[in-house]
Amino acid sequence: MEASRRIEQALATSLQRCERIECPPRLQAALRHAVFPAGARVRPRLCLAVAHSCGDDDPGLADASAAALELLHCASLVHDDLPCFDDAATRRGRASVHRAFGERTAVLVGDALIVMAFECIARAGARSPMRMAGVLSTLARAAGAPNGLAAGQAWECEPQAEVERYHRQKTGSLFAAATVAGAQCAGADPGRWRNFGECLGEAYQVADDIRDVADDPALLGKPVGQDSAHGCPSAVAALGLHGAVARFEELLDGALRAIPTCPGETQLRALVQFESIRLIPKGLAHRAA
Amino acid sequence: MEASRRIEQALATSLQRCERIECPPRLQAALRHAVFPAGARVRPRLCLAVAHSCGDDDPGLADASAAALELLHCASLVHDDLPCFDDAATRRGRASVHRAFGERTAVLVGDALIVMAFECIARAGARSPMRMAGVLSTLARAAGAPNGLAAGQAWECEPQAEVERYHRQKTGSLFAAATVAGAQCAGADPGRWRNFGECLGEAYQVADDIRDVADDPALLGKPVGQDSAHGCPSAVAALGLHGAVARFEELLDGALRAIPTCPGETQLRALVQFESIRLIPKGLAHRAA
Repeated sequence: MEASRRIEQALATSLQRCERIECPPRLQAALRHAVFPAGARVRPRLCLAVAHSCGDDDPGLADASAAALELLHCASLVHDDLPCFDDAATRRGRASVHRAFGERTAVLVGDALIVMAFECIARAGARSPMRMAGVLSTLARAAGAPNGLAAGQAWECEPQAEVERYHRQKTGSLFAAATVAGAQCAGADPGRWRNFGECLGEAYQVADDIRDVADDPALLGKPVGQDSAHGCPSAVAALGLHGAVARFEELLDGALRAIPTCPGETQLRALVQFESIRLIPKGLAHRAA
Repeated sequence: MEASRRIEQALATSLQRCERIECPPRLQAALRHAVFPAGARVRPRLCLAVAHSCGDDDPGLADASAAALELLHCASLVHDDLPCFDDAATRRGRASVHRAFGERTAVLVGDALIVMAFECIARAGARSPMRMAGVLSTLARAAGAPNGLAAGQAWECEPQAEVERYHRQKTGSLFAAATVAGAQCAGADPGRWRNFGECLGEAYQVADDIRDVADDPALLGKPVGQDSAHGCPSAVAALGLHGAVARFEELLDGALRAIPTCPGETQLRALVQFESIRLIPKGLAHRAA
C-alpha cells in the first residue's frame, strides 16, 4: 500500500476508537479537527520511508510508529496555538482547535493525542515486544524533557535560548525519532539513521523561520510574522534572511550525505529533494538571496 | 523497601533525568514543583499493594508503573489548575504550577509529565516486554480518550454530563489502572482486580465532592467550593450532602467486597480503611449526616 494511504488509515483507526458514546462529543470532534484533513505528514512519511529501506518486516509496527509521530506533532500544534503561546486563529487554513472548540477542550485534545500516540505503539507491539519497547523509548525521548519537543517549546519561556538547541529540540527531535523509529520497526540498527533525521529536522525548522518572514500567509495556512511577534528564537533573526537560506541549503546537503547506504537510498534522496522544494519554493529562495 | 520510599525513589529518578544542562531551567524547576513534595500518592500505593499481593516478582516494573500513575495524576492536576479550567491559585498548600511559573510552562509541564509516565514504563520493560506492553495499554486507556482521564475532564466542557460517568472516567480510570497494572506487573490475571480499583476510585471522587462543600480549605491545600463555582458535575449536587456520604460508604463497602482472595488481603483491607478515614474524617461524616 502507498505510504500516504497507510498513514491516513492508521490515523483514522486511532481516531475511530474515540468515536464512541462514552466519549464527550466535543472532545471527539476536536480530536478529529486536530488530525484531519491531512497536513504534509512529513514525519510519518519519513518514518515509513526509512522502515521500507530497512526491509519493513513488521509493517503494523511501522504504521503505528508513523501514526504516533503525527499524533505527537498534532498535539504540539494544538498546544502551540493556545492563547498563552501563539494565540493562532488558524491552522492548516481553518480555525485552530481552541478557536473552534474553546481553550479547555484544546488543552485536553493535546493531552489525549499524546496518550493516543503511546497507545498506538502499545497496540502494535504484540509481534515484537522488544522492538516496540525501543520505538516507545525513542518517541518518549523525542516528545518530552529534557531535550524533546516539550523542552524545545519551553525554551520560548526562558529569557535566553540558543537557536540551534531550540530548533534541535522543538523540531529536530521528532524528525530524528522518525528515522530512528523507522529503523527500529524493521529491526535495523537505529544509530546509523539518527543524523539523517536530525539534519532534515533542523532544515525544516530553518525553512519554517524563513517562510515566517518571507512567505504568503495563504500558502502557509497560518499567520506569518509569528516568530518576531512572540519573540521566539529564529534562524532569520540570528543569521539574517540570506544567512538562513544558506544554512537551509547546508543542512539539506548534510541530510543527503547522512543517508546510509541501503536499498531505498534513491527513494530517500528523492523524498529529501521533494521536501526541499515544498519547504522553500525556488522563487522564495531567489528573492531571499 | 517500604512502599512510600519505593515510590519517591522512582519519581526522583524520573525527575533527575530532566535535570540536565540541555533542559530549560524553568521547565526543570516546574516539573519538580508539580511532583514534589509528596501528596497522598494514593494511586501508586494502591498499585504497589496489589503487586505485592500478587507476588511482586518484577519490582522494577511495579515501581515504574507506580511512578507513571503518579506522573499522569500530577499532569492532570497541573492542567486542571490552569486559568481556563479551575484557575486554582494553590495546590498541596502552595502556589499552583501556573501561578509559580506561568501558564505556558504549566501547559508544557503537563505534556512532559504525560510523556515521562510512558517513558518510565518503557525503561522498565526489558525484563518482561510482554508484561510491559500490557501495563502500557492499561495506563494509556486510563489516561486518554474515549473513557480515560482526559475524557472525564472533557465532560466539564459539555452542556450535560452524567455524574457517574464523569467520576468513573476522571477519577475511577486511574484507580482501576492502579489495581490492574499492579496485577499485570506481577504476571497475575488483571481482570480480577479492576472492580476493586473502580469502586475505590468512585469513592475517592465522591469524597472529594463532599470535602469540596464541607471541608476546611487548610486541610485540603486548595480552595473549597470549586465544583459549584465552575459548574462541575458533583455527587453532592446530584444526591445532596447526606446522600453523597451514604454513597461514599456504599462504595467503600463495594471496594472491600471486591478485594480478591489473595495473600495480601488483610493489608489491602487496612489500606482501604486508612484511606476512608483520611478522605472523610469521622467528624465531617457526622456533621454531614
